[in-house]
Amino acid sequence: MMRQDHLITATQLSRDDIETVLDRARAVADDPAAYADRHAGRVLALCFFEPSTRTRMSFDSAAKRLGMNTIDMGDVDSSSVSKGESLSDTVRVIEGYADAIVLRHPSEGAATLAGERVDVPVVNAGDGAGQHPSQTLLDLHTIREDHGLDDLTIGIMGDLKYGRTVHSLAAALTEFDANQHFISPESLRLPRSVRFDLHETGAQIREHEEIEPVLDELDVLYVTRIQKERFPDENEYHRVAGEYRIDAETLEAADDDLTVMHPLPRVDEIAPDVDEADHARYFQQAHNGVPVRMALLDTLLENANPDGDEGTGVDR
Amino acid sequence: MMRQDHLITATQLSRDDIETVLDRARAVADDPAAYADRHAGRVLALCFFEPSTRTRMSFDSAAKRLGMNTIDMGDVDSSSVSKGESLSDTVRVIEGYADAIVLRHPSEGAATLAGERVDVPVVNAGDGAGQHPSQTLLDLHTIREDHGLDDLTIGIMGDLKYGRTVHSLAAALTEFDANQHFISPESLRLPRSVRFDLHETGAQIREHEEIEPVLDELDVLYVTRIQKERFPDENEYHRVAGEYRIDAETLEAADDDLTVMHPLPRVDEIAPDVDEADHARYFQQAHNGVPVRMALLDTLLENANPDGDEGTGVDR
Amino acid sequence: MMRQDHLITATQLSRDDIETVLDRARAVADDPAAYADRHAGRVLALCFFEPSTRTRMSFDSAAKRLGMNTIDMGDVDSSSVSKGESLSDTVRVIEGYADAIVLRHPSEGAATLAGERVDVPVVNAGDGAGQHPSQTLLDLHTIREDHGLDDLTIGIMGDLKYGRTVHSLAAALTEFDANQHFISPESLRLPRSVRFDLHETGAQIREHEEIEPVLDELDVLYVTRIQKERFPDENEYHRVAGEYRIDAETLEAADDDLTVMHPLPRVDEIAPDVDEADHARYFQQAHNGVPVRMALLDTLLENANPDGDEGTGVDR
Repeated sequence: MMRQDHLITATQLSRDDIETVLDRARAVADDPAAYADRHAGRVLALCFFEPSTRTRMSFDSAAKRLGMNTIDMGDVDSSSVSKGESLSDTVRVIEGYADAIVLRHPSEGAATLAGERVDVPVVNAGDGAGQHPSQTLLDLHTIREDHGLDDLTIGIMGDLKYGRTVHSLAAALTEFDANQHFISPESLRLPRSVRFDLHETGAQIREHEEIEPVLDELDVLYVTRIQKERFPDENEYHRVAGEYRIDAETLEAADDDLTVMHPLPRVDEIAPDVDEADHARYFQQAHNGVPVRMALLDTLLENANPDGDEGTGVDR
Repeated sequence: MMRQDHLITATQLSRDDIETVLDRARAVADDPAAYADRHAGRVLALCFFEPSTRTRMSFDSAAKRLGMNTIDMGDVDSSSVSKGESLSDTVRVIEGYADAIVLRHPSEGAATLAGERVDVPVVNAGDGAGQHPSQTLLDLHTIREDHGLDDLTIGIMGDLKYGRTVHSLAAALTEFDANQHFISPESLRLPRSVRFDLHETGAQIREHEEIEPVLDELDVLYVTRIQKERFPDENEYHRVAGEYRIDAETLEAADDDLTVMHPLPRVDEIAPDVDEADHARYFQQAHNGVPVRMALLDTLLENANPDGDEGTGVDR
Repeated sequence: MMRQDHLITATQLSRDDIETVLDRARAVADDPAAYADRHAGRVLALCFFEPSTRTRMSFDSAAKRLGMNTIDMGDVDSSSVSKGESLSDTVRVIEGYADAIVLRHPSEGAATLAGERVDVPVVNAGDGAGQHPSQTLLDLHTIREDHGLDDLTIGIMGDLKYGRTVHSLAAALTEFDANQHFISPESLRLPRSVRFDLHETGAQIREHEEIEPVLDELDVLYVTRIQKERFPDENEYHRVAGEYRIDAETLEAADDDLTVMHPLPRVDEIAPDVDEADHARYFQQAHNGVPVRMALLDTLLENANPDGDEGTGVDR
């Protein structure tokens, strides 16, 4: 990691860093009671400059399952930001109220800036089109629980052009030499720069316009949402969305052990008849947000307080 | 109860179920310290798809007085719902973050649906024109503390047409063979279907347009808000609202032991000069939301975890 | 104090009251662990009828660092207030959910009214153009930590006409016979009534249009925000804002021990190059909100529960 007590980008994480966090996530899930009071008395600030349900709630739950309290900045409309305060000032004030900060912000680079300004651990929970590294960690955890991370063949399907989730995951998987298949319509292919970066690391990637030819090779199929607003023409959207939709029938050709994932929310990309199939792992994937974020917060707080001080830094 | 760890409708509750919860509410109020850590480490998700102050805050307080933490979905505008996610998906994700869910939703039947989808206890905190059973329980608790629930004579006054609170309470009181008087203008009478259901159970009900003839027979007078928006004509609203308003002078004709209740918020249905009268119990009624909801959560969690496991189900 | 368990105005506080709270704030900051469970089980209601980030978050953090839980009323738009409920009814309901109430409200006198209606401690966190006494306490704490409160020379600069923060601070400082210099453009001078009240108490105050002549005499320079919306003409705003802006160069003429304060958020009144100067104390000042509010809540709860009962008043 860059600084051992921030998590700003997935790319800052080495293979060892990732495995350390995921091992701890497994330990948390195996024996949550052992972690229930680990950070009692500490306070986590949830600073979401953009709306979020699942990321915010799962960090909130994770903190509380570590014994921490949380304080929430609330909506941006109600905040000092609307009085023209800089992000730098806001986080410098809030670090006095909390022992760690989770930050989501519409501007790429916001978390990097915040991390430079404050002394407490900062977790990037999404900065615009940039990074969302805790999502990557919970994706990796979900994959690892089913298949491990070595010798993996994964298909990533849907909107590969705009999805930061997908770009981070693909980058992280190069650390494990995964075989990566990217399946999308021509108009939503991986951006050239992302492809270039993946090639640079020696990653084994291939692109397809259809899922059928590769489906039976896959250990994991990671589906993403195709957003209507990307299409100038609604008919075109419906045509594309229909072609990249997964249902129980589609999956008949898949390996029995195929794991189907989705970062959620889904709209129509995965039919409800998949939900009860053995393949479906997207709800579990969302639930994994709690132990993974517990492991992450635990690791960062440990790095920030190496001598095990109690988290009562009232007068920083 | 239908499923022993959900509370979806008041009608699912037998007389025994009700008395079990209310006995526990009394025990909680008598010795709150005995319950202060009972569910330490457990997390309650507050999912309010419609605004609420008192219901949300009293569940929040109740959970915390049981040692639980809460996580809040926040406003719907800020949530995944606005990205088109189904209620079913939302609650299936959130059950991974929490040990129980309190749900308010504008659509009748939402809580039933949620209860079918998730494994953790679900409490219906209002589903459109449907049910709001924890309100009924706190109403019953308030009545019971003053008069018991047997041989009761109650007057229910105001808007009897639209108030879900009133319909649930009336239905629950039939379990105790209460004498029920319904007092309203013709235009706001009990709906025919509700009257029919009450008659079906053999309930003793009578309807009136004026309070005076029955006031001195009553043990309890339950007043509800008459909403301006129900009237096409503002003058008509003011005329009706004035006729169904209670003040200290009205109550001179009442029995000394009459208990006056109101689900709040009130606007003008009860004059401020009633507030300090011995009859007034509407603030106490609101306050009863805390011990009753503590008893309810305690009961549901106990039913859901019969072997007394600690609530640390991180990796459900 | 007026009632020993409310804090409604800074002017209710005697010199002794202030010193008691600030001594305790120092004790809290020195040994926060000693306070970490002091009010375990108690619940604080945060009732903000106007938006707030730092005041709300620092009360929230302070409560949790005392072991308390908090429940939040949420936005006014989502609350019963929008159904026409009176403030009096709202706080009388909420006192049943909580052991203390922090209230911000747009109407002057709101906190006084609330304090008369409820039995639990009420803290005024801002009532319109009125008082915001916990801000005054944290301002005094910040000054006292650097210079003590005796023989103090302070300059208060910027918008002196509309700032309630400034008026409360100036009034409190008269208790300590401070020399007070007020620096502002003519159009933003202290209101006549405030000047009159200060003179009545025998306070030593002087007014200036420029900072330079008095800068080197000052122990403390307290800068406030000049709000664009006060000026009919935008050019006039920029001219004035530029004249009352502090930067590193300005401070070369100051005493080495000068403390620069600002209630935040700032926009442009203090240049970023001051942030790393030894003079800068405005982030520390914000951070002091936590120990000062811990000390305040602790004092009020102690006064409200003199025999040291546990905070589990479920059935008030």
